[in-house]
Amino acid sequence: MAAPALDVLGFGNAIVDCLAKVDDDFLAKQALNKGSMALIDEARAASLYEAMGQVTVISGGSAANTIIGAAGLGCKTGFVGKLKADSLGNQFAHDIRAAKVVFETPFAVDGPASALCLVLVTPDGQRTMNTFLGASGNLTEADVDPELVQSAAITYLEGYLWDPPAAKQAFLKAAQIAEEAGRKVALTLSDTFCVDRYRPEFMALIQDGVVQILFANESELHALYQTSDFNTAIAALRQEKVLGIVTRSEKGSVVVSQNDVLAVPAFPVEEVVDTTGAGDLFAAGFLSGLSKGLDHTACARLGALAAAEVIQHIGARPQTDLAYLARQNGFEF
Amino acid sequence: MAAPALDVLGFGNAIVDCLAKVDDDFLAKQALNKGSMALIDEARAASLYEAMGQVTVISGGSAANTIIGAAGLGCKTGFVGKLKADSLGNQFAHDIRAAKVVFETPFAVDGPASALCLVLVTPDGQRTMNTFLGASGNLTEADVDPELVQSAAITYLEGYLWDPPAAKQAFLKAAQIAEEAGRKVALTLSDTFCVDRYRPEFMALIQDGVVQILFANESELHALYQTSDFNTAIAALRQEKVLGIVTRSEKGSVVVSQNDVLAVPAFPVEEVVDTTGAGDLFAAGFLSGLSKGLDHTACARLGALAAAEVIQHIGARPQTDLAYLARQNGFEF
Repeated sequence: MAAPALDVLGFGNAIVDCLAKVDDDFLAKQALNKGSMALIDEARAASLYEAMGQVTVISGGSAANTIIGAAGLGCKTGFVGKLKADSLGNQFAHDIRAAKVVFETPFAVDGPASALCLVLVTPDGQRTMNTFLGASGNLTEADVDPELVQSAAITYLEGYLWDPPAAKQAFLKAAQIAEEAGRKVALTLSDTFCVDRYRPEFMALIQDGVVQILFANESELHALYQTSDFNTAIAALRQEKVLGIVTRSEKGSVVVSQNDVLAVPAFPVEEVVDTTGAGDLFAAGFLSGLSKGLDHTACARLGALAAAEVIQHIGARPQTDLAYLARQNGFEF
Repeated sequence: MAAPALDVLGFGNAIVDCLAKVDDDFLAKQALNKGSMALIDEARAASLYEAMGQVTVISGGSAANTIIGAAGLGCKTGFVGKLKADSLGNQFAHDIRAAKVVFETPFAVDGPASALCLVLVTPDGQRTMNTFLGASGNLTEADVDPELVQSAAITYLEGYLWDPPAAKQAFLKAAQIAEEAGRKVALTLSDTFCVDRYRPEFMALIQDGVVQILFANESELHALYQTSDFNTAIAALRQEKVLGIVTRSEKGSVVVSQNDVLAVPAFPVEEVVDTTGAGDLFAAGFLSGLSKGLDHTACARLGALAAAEVIQHIGARPQTDLAYLARQNGFEF
């Protein structure tokens, strides 16, 4: 088998974020769960948008953010996700191609509009997300190009892909092709409610060896093992045959393997403006480190650095040159 | 005549900004004049967009930014500008109404798409703008509601409105209605190239008493009086029967009347991220001060404060509560 042409190939919901600043009262009034992601229909999206203030529209999508971040750190990357050729769809496609990511998924010719996520940012910098999946739910097995998957050292899948039924099949097909090609598969658990929705299936992916690298934040890990105790959850994760990376916001991250548990501090920031994309960019840094052959501690440090960049401004895509930032902080790029 | 229901009514091109960070080489390659605004057609907009990196899409438009800022400082405001009911048009309308600005201009039912401005932000924080006027050029006299204009203490007009021929007529009609109602008319010169295009007409507006309040930055003032000497330009401005407000970036502002020339310092900022909207928000603060009966020095300080907010983040619309910011800085609101 030839050396992989891509370092990381991401599969995810192709989403454009509409961000607005709101206060905590707004969340209460709209009965929203702070910090989580809720799936909403088009009518709810329209009424929530109506109630929101001034929006900033920036491409997003969890796996897409990660891929953009990895590209910014010098990785060769690709992305697979479904859009329609409408205004938001064109913006997403423009942005991901502008970052030199291979993106060739054909636009949906009919069906719902491109996906959007209404992201409500509270004064504490936390984001509460409301996603209308739209066209991104129409990703199917037909969109999985076997050669593209075979060409990638790591195929990175977001848990959110479990929500649209056809996308789940695309997810599983990609994982199978990667396995048969001797490539690695990484999964992010995405969100606690997503874990609640698909716990047995996610556990099977981990325990059946479909996934070799697992990203989760502390809450998602607690949800996976249905415990409120961090050490219990880490001990359970250690029993799995995966490399587990658990992010803990300002408490840093923990890298868990059967041999080792490494705690790596967060990167200090002056002010948290908007946490949207923090986990996604952490994964970008970590995966980039893996692709460069760095040790796990260095991978987690690079993840922390990329996450720190994205939480200091509005939106989940980096606004500075991540490779330059990494060099400034002692990484060789 | 009843007391005015609105403090400020703005007329302007209704534009959504697509901002991207670029380096100076990009401007050179695209033959763009740093810091200025160029009018472009749809084909050029498409090719420039293609070449730009990741975009952030935020409502803009010079007069609209000013009106949003004034609303944020507690003024009762309205806006008149033309959109189409497309994605960008809906975003603009949503955003301006979300700020509680009276906005009732009907959408254009045919013709070009809503206006957009491709804003290229260089590492020094300067912005270079490329505007496709689209639907905003279809503002006509029919869109000027006499009662609305009569209800506003100040009608605020942007020089850019001179570019679309029909909009100029709307501009003049609004100014005439305001004059007949005993209201004030303010004009911003918008851009040096805009001054070059319409110098005799702008001079006539000033010297014929159509305009009583004039906003300009230093370069625009130099262009108006065709001098490279600031003191010469200020002396010429002093001869006009207008209240002139000249902004000078980090050097602060100068308020010029026949009786007085007041220099007011800029508000210190930690880092200039993006100067888009600096002049617009200065005007917002100044006009808000006037509507609250503050003296000219206090008006210019309030302008400087609002401008300082908007240059510390991407986009030309405030991201913080300006009234709160003003209170924190000793203004009574």
